[in-house]
Order: sequence, then C-alpha cells, then structure tokens
Amino acid sequence: MIRVGVVGATGYAGAELVRILAGHRGVELSLLTSRQHAGAGFSDIYPSMAGVVDRPLEAYDPESAAERTDLLFMSLPHKLPMALVPDLLARGKRVVDLSADFRFRDAALYEQAYQPHSSPELLPRAVYGLAEVYREEIRTAELIGNPGCYPTSVLLPLVPLIRRRMLLSQSLVADSKSGVSGAGRSPAQATLFCEVAESFKAYKVGTHRHTPEMEQILTREAGQPVALTFVPHLVPMSRGMLTTLYGRAQKGVSSAAVRDCLADFYRDAPFIRICPDGRPPDTRHVRGTNYCDIGVHLEEKTGRLIVMAAIDNLVKGAAGQAVQNMNLMLGLPETEGLTAVPAPL
Amino acid sequence: MIRVGVVGATGYAGAELVRILAGHRGVELSLLTSRQHAGAGFSDIYPSMAGVVDRPLEAYDPESAAERTDLLFMSLPHKLPMALVPDLLARGKRVVDLSADFRFRDAALYEQAYQPHSSPELLPRAVYGLAEVYREEIRTAELIGNPGCYPTSVLLPLVPLIRRRMLLSQSLVADSKSGVSGAGRSPAQATLFCEVAESFKAYKVGTHRHTPEMEQILTREAGQPVALTFVPHLVPMSRGMLTTLYGRAQKGVSSAAVRDCLADFYRDAPFIRICPDGRPPDTRHVRGTNYCDIGVHLEEKTGRLIVMAAIDNLVKGAAGQAVQNMNLMLGLPETEGLTAVPAPL
Amino acid sequence: MIRVGVVGATGYAGAELVRILAGHRGVELSLLTSRQHAGAGFSDIYPSMAGVVDRPLEAYDPESAAERTDLLFMSLPHKLPMALVPDLLARGKRVVDLSADFRFRDAALYEQAYQPHSSPELLPRAVYGLAEVYREEIRTAELIGNPGCYPTSVLLPLVPLIRRRMLLSQSLVADSKSGVSGAGRSPAQATLFCEVAESFKAYKVGTHRHTPEMEQILTREAGQPVALTFVPHLVPMSRGMLTTLYGRAQKGVSSAAVRDCLADFYRDAPFIRICPDGRPPDTRHVRGTNYCDIGVHLEEKTGRLIVMAAIDNLVKGAAGQAVQNMNLMLGLPETEGLTAVPAPL
Amino acid sequence: MIRVGVVGATGYAGAELVRILAGHRGVELSLLTSRQHAGAGFSDIYPSMAGVVDRPLEAYDPESAAERTDLLFMSLPHKLPMALVPDLLARGKRVVDLSADFRFRDAALYEQAYQPHSSPELLPRAVYGLAEVYREEIRTAELIGNPGCYPTSVLLPLVPLIRRRMLLSQSLVADSKSGVSGAGRSPAQATLFCEVAESFKAYKVGTHRHTPEMEQILTREAGQPVALTFVPHLVPMSRGMLTTLYGRAQKGVSSAAVRDCLADFYRDAPFIRICPDGRPPDTRHVRGTNYCDIGVHLEEKTGRLIVMAAIDNLVKGAAGQAVQNMNLMLGLPETEGLTAVPAPL
Repeated sequence: MIRVGVVGATGYAGAELVRILAGHRGVELSLLTSRQHAGAGFSDIYPSMAGVVDRPLEAYDPESAAERTDLLFMSLPHKLPMALVPDLLARGKRVVDLSADFRFRDAALYEQAYQPHSSPELLPRAVYGLAEVYREEIRTAELIGNPGCYPTSVLLPLVPLIRRRMLLSQSLVADSKSGVSGAGRSPAQATLFCEVAESFKAYKVGTHRHTPEMEQILTREAGQPVALTFVPHLVPMSRGMLTTLYGRAQKGVSSAAVRDCLADFYRDAPFIRICPDGRPPDTRHVRGTNYCDIGVHLEEKTGRLIVMAAIDNLVKGAAGQAVQNMNLMLGLPETEGLTAVPAPL
Repeated sequence: MIRVGVVGATGYAGAELVRILAGHRGVELSLLTSRQHAGAGFSDIYPSMAGVVDRPLEAYDPESAAERTDLLFMSLPHKLPMALVPDLLARGKRVVDLSADFRFRDAALYEQAYQPHSSPELLPRAVYGLAEVYREEIRTAELIGNPGCYPTSVLLPLVPLIRRRMLLSQSLVADSKSGVSGAGRSPAQATLFCEVAESFKAYKVGTHRHTPEMEQILTREAGQPVALTFVPHLVPMSRGMLTTLYGRAQKGVSSAAVRDCLADFYRDAPFIRICPDGRPPDTRHVRGTNYCDIGVHLEEKTGRLIVMAAIDNLVKGAAGQAVQNMNLMLGLPETEGLTAVPAPL
Repeated sequence: MIRVGVVGATGYAGAELVRILAGHRGVELSLLTSRQHAGAGFSDIYPSMAGVVDRPLEAYDPESAAERTDLLFMSLPHKLPMALVPDLLARGKRVVDLSADFRFRDAALYEQAYQPHSSPELLPRAVYGLAEVYREEIRTAELIGNPGCYPTSVLLPLVPLIRRRMLLSQSLVADSKSGVSGAGRSPAQATLFCEVAESFKAYKVGTHRHTPEMEQILTREAGQPVALTFVPHLVPMSRGMLTTLYGRAQKGVSSAAVRDCLADFYRDAPFIRICPDGRPPDTRHVRGTNYCDIGVHLEEKTGRLIVMAAIDNLVKGAAGQAVQNMNLMLGLPETEGLTAVPAPL
Repeated sequence: MIRVGVVGATGYAGAELVRILAGHRGVELSLLTSRQHAGAGFSDIYPSMAGVVDRPLEAYDPESAAERTDLLFMSLPHKLPMALVPDLLARGKRVVDLSADFRFRDAALYEQAYQPHSSPELLPRAVYGLAEVYREEIRTAELIGNPGCYPTSVLLPLVPLIRRRMLLSQSLVADSKSGVSGAGRSPAQATLFCEVAESFKAYKVGTHRHTPEMEQILTREAGQPVALTFVPHLVPMSRGMLTTLYGRAQKGVSSAAVRDCLADFYRDAPFIRICPDGRPPDTRHVRGTNYCDIGVHLEEKTGRLIVMAAIDNLVKGAAGQAVQNMNLMLGLPETEGLTAVPAPL
C-alpha cells in the first residue's frame, strides 16, 4: 500500500485532503503534520471526524516524513513548499503541491506575482496538474503544481475551446465568484461571519495572483500571448465557485457545436459534466464533489460566447484534483477516493 | 399633507414601500391594498411593524382609491398595473408604477418581452424613473415607470460614461448578482432556503426581460443601437445586488478620469457614492439604504474598463427609488424618508 | 442482491435515501417513484447526481412495485403510507416507513395527533425503528415505523438514562432546534430563503405532533406516564438538529457517571459519539452523516442534568436511520452505506 | 445640545451606537475613539456610513474626552472601563458603560466571574440599566451598568412575572440562542463564516458569565436566592437573540393571565411588544430595532410556563438600550433616536 502524508493537514484544503484520503482504498494515510496543532489528534481539531481519523498531528520533520511516506501533499501557504520540496524530491519522494510554488514554468512570472523563488531549477520538472488537460504528463511526474481554484474553473472550460479554435483567445473576461473557504481558516476580520453574511463584493480587481497563472496556460494553449480580464468576487457561502466567462466565438460556431466540442474533449473525463441547454451550472450541484459542471450559451445578437463552470473550490479546486493527480501518478483508477455520491442538498 | 396609497402592499417591494413611507414626514399613508390579505392588518403579515403600521389591508377599489389618495404606488406583477392606471390618471391621480408596464416608450419592445400592452397610448406620457438621470422630467411627470433593479444597477454607472464618451457603447457586458428577495414572496421551490443556501448560479442567461429595458435606455443615451450582454446570478443572501460591468474605455482615458466623470455627473446626487480606488463596492454597505455605490478599475493591459455598482435591490432597485421619484414629483426634498443612517452590519 | 425501492424519491428525505442507497454495496436500487415528476430522470430533479443516479422516476404502481422490489422505503407524507403498506406486506414485502403512520402502538394516540388510522391492525406488527435501542426487534421486523427527527434526537440520549435510572423521568424539557430541510421541499412562504435568513424562532410551541411520539416511548421505557415539554425552533441552516434536554439527575449521580452510562449503553453503537467534557455537540460535526453526538453537563448548583444531542435531521433523523434499519432487517453490517467520511466543513 | 462620545466606536456595539446616535435629534456626537483605528475616519472602517459619519477616530485622551463631551458611552471589553470611569465621574461626566464592570452591586460576585475590581467603591453608585424595570433610578444616575444581551432577554420577561408572583422563582431554565455579532469583531477562528454556517451548538454550558449577572437581579426581585440554569447557543445569523424560558406557573394562573400581567407591567413601555397567542416571537421581527417581543405559552399537562423573548442583541441587548438609558438620564423622550421603522426583512 502506498503511504501518503499531508503536510499542513489542518487548513481547509488539508482537512479536505484528509477526508478524501481516509476514504481512499489505494493508499494509506501515514503522516499528518501541523505546526500549530502538533500533538493534538486530527479529530480534536475537526471533531466531525472523531472515530474516523483520530491520528495525531505532528510537527514536520523531513527525515521522518521521507521515511514514512512515498508521496506527500503539501498544503501550505506559498513560499513554504519551495523550501521543503527539493529535499523530498532528492529523497525520491513524489510531491503534489497545492500552493503556487510549482505552478509556473517561468520563475520570473512567479516572482512578479509572489516573491523570489528559491528553487527555480525545479520548475521545469514540475507539471501543472490540470488533470483532464495534462493527464499524460501527470502520470509520470514527480512533482505536481496543483492548480489554483480560480484557474481550474477558468481553464477547464477554456482550454478545449481554444485548442479547437471555437473561441478567440483575445478579449476574454472571467467573472468568478467564490465561497468563503477559499480564504482559509486563519482568523481574519474579513471572513468573520458578520462581515460576509448579506455581503457580495469583488476583491483584488485586476490584481489577483491567479491571473498570471491563468494567462500562462492560456498563452501556452493559444500559441500567442493572452491577456485575461479576471475579477474575483466573494459569495456568502462556505464552498463553491462559479466562473462566468465571456468571449468571442469563431464565426459560424453554434451553441450546440461548443457543447459538443466540450463533450467530445472530455468524453473520457468522468468529473466533467456538460449541462443541458437552459440549465446553468450551480455550485450546489457540485458541493463536496470533484465535478466541474460546464454550461454554454451563445448569444446570437452579439456573437458572444458565455461559458459557465461550477466547482467546489476545496475539492476540484484543491484537494480533489490533488488526489486525482495522485491517482494518475500512481497508476490507480482516476476516480478512486472521489466517487462519494453527491448530496441532494 | 399628500395622501399616498400602496397597491400591492404585502410583497417584498410593497412592504419596503410601507416601511419607507411610514417614516416619511411629507406624506400620509392613506391606503394599503392586498388581494390576498384583505381584512388583515399590515402588521399581521409583517409583525416586525406591529405597533408601527397596523393599518388594515383592503381589496383594491378604484373609486375608493381615487377618493382617498393623491398619489399611488403600484407594486403589482406586470400586466395588472396597465389595467388600473388609465382610470387613475383619468381621475387626476399621479402614479409611480414599480412593474415593467410603463418602462418602455415603444410598445413593441414591451410586447416582445412581456405580453400585449393594453394601454400603449400612455407610454409616451410615462417617464422612466431613473431618478438621478431623468430628474427634470420626473418632476413634472404624472406617471413613472420605476426602473427594474438590474437596470438601475447597470444604468446608473453607465449613462454618465456613455454621455460623456468615456466608454464605448459597444461590446458591453453586465454580470449581475442579486439577493433572493428579488424573486418575491410567493412560495416557489426555487427560492426555498434549502435550494438557495450554499448555491450560486446564473439564470435566464441571455434571456432576462430586463435586457431590452436596459438596451432601450443605452440606445437612447448612446444615440445608436446598443446590444448588451446581460447575465444575472442568484446570491444566497436576502437583499443586495452587485453588477460588474465590462467595457472598452475611450483611448487615453484613465481610471481617475472615469471616477472624476462619475463624481462630477453625480455631484448633486446624494445617493450616489463613488468608492475610493481599491475598495470595491459591497452590497452590505448599501443594505437597507437608497445608495448606489460605484467603483471603477481601468485595466491597463487590456484597456478594459471595469465598473461595479452595488445597490439594495428592494430600495434603490425598487421602493427607495420609487419614493425618491415621488419626492421629485411632489417638490419635496429628494432625500425625504430615505435618510435613515445605514447599519454597520 | 436485494432489490429496494424508494416511494416518494424526490422529497428531501427521499432524495437522501437515494444518495445513501446509491452508495450501498448490499442492495440494488430498483424503483424510484414520484407522483409529481414521473417520467423525468432522478437527476433532472437533483442535478447534483447527474451521471450517478439518472434512473427514471415512475408513478407508483403496487403490482409493479411488488414485483420489482424486496423491500420498500415509504418517504411520503403521513396518511398515504397506511393506504399502501397493507398490500405490500400481504405480498411479502418488507417496509421501512418514514412517516408517522406506523410509529404508534396505540391507534388512539396516533389519531389524536394525526387523523383516523385506516390500518390499525398493523400497528402491533410494526417496530419503532430507533435503531440503537430496539435493534433486536428490528432485525426480524417486516414493518418499521422510522422515528421522527425530533424524537431521534430526544430519545437516543434519554432512553439509556431512564433505563438505568440516572435521570428522573418527570419534569423533562426538550428544547430542540432544527434546520430548514425538516420542513420539506414543497413550496411554502414560511421556508423561503428571505423568511428564514436572519430569523430564529420557536414554532408549534407545546403542540408539535412529535410530542406524543416521544411520550409514548418515554412512558414505555420509564414504566410510568411521562409528560414531556417540547419546544421546537427553526434555525437558518439547511441541515442539522440540536436538542438541549433539561432534567433532574438522580441524587448522587455525577457528570462523568452520566457520560459513562451513555458510553457503556452505546459501546456497540458505531453511530453514537459521546463528546468530551467541555466540547458540546455541533450540528456541523454530524452534517451529512448518520452520527448522533451527545454531550453532558451536570449543573451542581441545581442538580439539573443538561444533555445535548446533535444529528443531521435528514440522515440520522430520517434516511440514514432508515437504511440502518434496513441493514438490521437484512442481516447486513449495520454501517453499510453509512460510512462516508464526514466533511471538515 | 448635549455632547456625547463613544469610547470604543469600531466594535459592533460601538458602531451600532454611532448609527443610533447619528440619527438622534437630542444629542451631538462629539467624540469617537478607537485605539486600533485612531487617525482613520469612522466611515473608512464602516463604509456603509460614508457621507453620513465620516468623523475621525481618535485615541482616547481623558482630558480631551472630558472637555468635549457631557456624557460618554464606554463600549470596551470589561476591565478597561473600570480604569477610566472614576476619572470621568470625578470630572462630572455621566457614563453609560456597556461592559460588565458596573453591572454588579457586589464586587465579590463580579470578581468571581471576571477579575479583581479596581473601583469597587463605585458599584453602589451605578444603576443596572434594565431600562423598563429600573427606569426611575436610571433617570438620576450618573453611571449606568448597561445589561448584557442575554440578561436583557431573560430579565425583561421574568422580572414582571416574579414581582407579581405569576411564576415560581425556583427551577428556572433559560435556553438562549444568539446571533454571531455577540462575539464581536475581533478576528477569531470560532466566528469565521465557514465555522458558523450550517452550525448550531451550545457553548459555555453552565459557565457563562452572564449567569451571575442574571441571578443577582432575579434574587433581588424574588427576595430570595435564585439559581438559574442558563445555556447559550450560537445561531448562524448576524443579529438577533431568542431566549426560551421554562418555569413553573403559580397554581391557577392561565396563559392569558400571564400575557395580561406582562402587558400591564409594560403598558408604558414602547419597546416591549407582547405577541398574540400562537405567534411566537421571531428575531427577524426585531432586527435593527430596540424592541423586545415576548410570547407566552402555558402548558396545561405539566403546568409549565414557557416564555420566549426576542431582541436584537446589538440594539436592545446593547447600543439601543444604552441610548434609551441616556434618554432617561437626560430627560429626553425615551424613544428618541430609536424609532426607525423596522424593516420587513
């Protein structure tokens, strides 16, 4: 049995990893780390899992981590993983990193958005873990830069349409809306219940760090520079993300053709569901799951293509996609651990 | 004292009218009608107002309504007002209609989106009640077509920019998000708590009836046909609406110039607040008020202008703007009844 | 493979049954009925399950139901099941009924709270499906009256304490709080998002129909008449129920003794978790699960025993307990289908 | 014009004071202090009030505070006010303190629940500001200990019933439920949106510091020691508090008699509303107002009296009652500043 560790297990994405891995039949959870809660049991911090995952949380120790695991998920704030990953790779471990540290091929792009990169030599070895798109490279990767939640919701619908030239890669707008869990579990005034309830607003307008991450991939796929207008918004709900994309369809393309293009591109992708005409995706329909639901509307009067994608920001946008990537890396069924029946509400 | 009536007082917009008018020092509430709840006291239906507005609800009777009021608010589903208003005007009453029935100058446009219009001859006499924009015509109007909530949030930021040629009138996208009260108080599965909580989705994509209403005004203001891409979304909150607008700035225009343009256009408009750079509008900041908060971001890399507007859909988007229109019609201070201090949360 | 049917599959409890049964390895879902949605696919009504449970919904036909199933869940409003169940039992089917129709041994009690009972002769053959308490009788039952959600949250903590004489059976108060899904999926003004959000209130104070259901069991267990004061409240959340119980401890009983008593009584009950001192149960910790979390506090100054129990009203309070009962009836592992790892949030 | 200051203006209760005082016609807001935000404008911190209350926040300076105000509201964590108040009183200022520091007559009781009291000599001079009950003493007070939110919701319904001997003062249970704003605006994991949404739980069971505050008053009113069982719970909503009280009615007392007793006791109390039979109080009906809505149900089978009270924890439970107390102290109309029409939702 493959032994896996979760480094940073008590943030929301880390805890979601624990939830998924605890129900995974192909791997064994052998390490949970937490700087803040070392010594406590996991279920002391997340009592929902009492009796299910009670394993103690430990401080991270590279020696011990390497000894007791075969593959590690890094669920830490950016900047921390790039300090720990080189050692793990050197010890022959495989790593799925949920931070931004290994999502960029070009260190300069990373450094513009984040800070100096201490291990730029690893970037060419890392694979961008957009599972349905880069599946083949992921299978053999030793290091995955797991995509951000916003990029996942933007790229899954766009990449096929750009590759197959249904959509002009210029003049794209992504208007995204995220539940609050994306902001993490650290105490902050901005995410207090009373600040978020009955509130809807944009934030980091035109300056969000996920923008260069998306532009990098769009540029790669389009074969020419792509500038994306991206505006994230905060929704008073815990989980879920909806992105509404506005672009220009190629001349002559119909709504059905776009839907068919996506359906065909994702015909072997069990987590992508194309919504029927007239039923736009809803975050509630993907809550707690690894699905990405995609809807399409071509506006005749303007020739504008409207594409909507709904994911659970913590699952397909983080932990679920990370496990999907692990499954690919380990040659396990792609859906293993990710097939819990979705809840009706 | 001017006597005013609210026809359809128990829907959410009607009840909000009652709330505002009950605190208004220039008019006297002299009639509340409700087909469904005739005979009950208003506060039996809205116990929050027990001891404040206990007045009985009555079935609508045209004779009595005309006799006991000088001005009437029609807060009814579209199609009903156009049957009642001609008689009221004939009796010399003034009317603010919150439905779509008198928002269109062109009956054909109305009929395309709604149904045959039974009083098309009144349309040229009706004034579109976008208070800050058509203030002068409103002052002397006998009949106001009070704008829809979405159009208010779209037009207040756009009209000045189009008039003053800061913004191209082509290629406009309005991505709007509304709280649930916009759907009204009638029982419906789609707006049950359990269907809406933890849900975010678009609806009526490219087909919402507010689109022709907005295009009509944008076309009038631009002096050329304007096609607007409009996508409404439902937010799990009771009140509030945020619209994020995407357009093309005129060459050479800066973010500050846009902000200045709006500030100047609205220098005498007490309900319009231009947000400082870096603090996008938030629906929570306008909750329960007649404010429209507007934020601006010009994206240098694309030349795209992003404008955000937040309103309370039931106040500035309905009852508040209706009272503002009444104030203008009656020569009262524009802010009368609308100056309650906003709540911190 | 045992074939099971869900009669009334599109209400919240019915849909939750479908969710659980779709992940159950010991039975096969062979029939889903819905009067209202016959002809549609299940996932047309609950798109979250698209690709997972697409099976068509059918109108209920007794002949066909009997032919195609071995066991049926009745998830219908009370009064309907008692008309259908006699025929099913006569055909040798086993039935778990989620309504109140078969929860009472005494038809008169039922009739006082509901309406005339058309099959009183079946009542002695029905077993009250409080799984952890009446496990042995359930194993051999042909007909289960699945407990109401409130009774489950009240009886699971109380029965052991009454049986073992830790608690006086007199002067009991149950102050219960339920999420909105308990009110069902039928459109109703009272459960609209805007009516429930930012609202907390009691309802049916002293008159709720679950009271005689609870008193019947408490009386049976205490061996003397028990009158329970029961006040239900509505919480602005979708799922979850917390009951706070107030009673009188027997002299000399300590908080630890109560906790030990519960732990011992439920030592073989995988779904009952006794919370450590100082961490009261939280509905979020049992959301989506079949757990009942119980907390205890003995107030020294008054001798009052405070016991709290949290369940998910749709799972342990309805569909989950129903499946647990089915597992017992079929000799399957009690936890089959009910072991999905709980979510951290 | 009386000049008033708010010391600690940026917490939720402080901001609510600012909201109310900004609409008050009898006083002038002349000082807003904030340690954390000194230098910023009030509306920088609460943008909802932009253009309404922009006044700068200042660090607290006793000299300047005394010079520029006639009366001060202290809206600070307990322990801080008792250090500042003696100086203010010595300078002839009147003070309404919203913390616990001056709610106790007996320093020992305070010290048991909080910490050593540095100004015990002031306690006999302070009046407990339960406005409807101690109105006469409040009128002449120089120092008010403004009641806690839970005590307000418990004492307003209980005191009349105890005074008039409708209710036994023994064996009382208060099961209270509070919105999240009661926990304040300081960042804390426990009150993050994702921790609170879809969560309902008790906290500080049997140990909440408001218990001795309530017992002190109940004991005073009953003329004998009263022990109260008090269990607070957290509700996923921003504002509002509902307390459900369980007690023993005196023999022969009817539900109507209890309701009449309350109505009579509060006949001159404009903020107390007695709910009609069958319509329990709802926090939504008092949201943003200074009302306390009270409902009564006498359970015949047990003789138990169930009394429910709903308040807005930030208004009647804090800032509103504080302003009401100020009005009494200054001889202003009791309702001044507190008459905004309640919102329908």
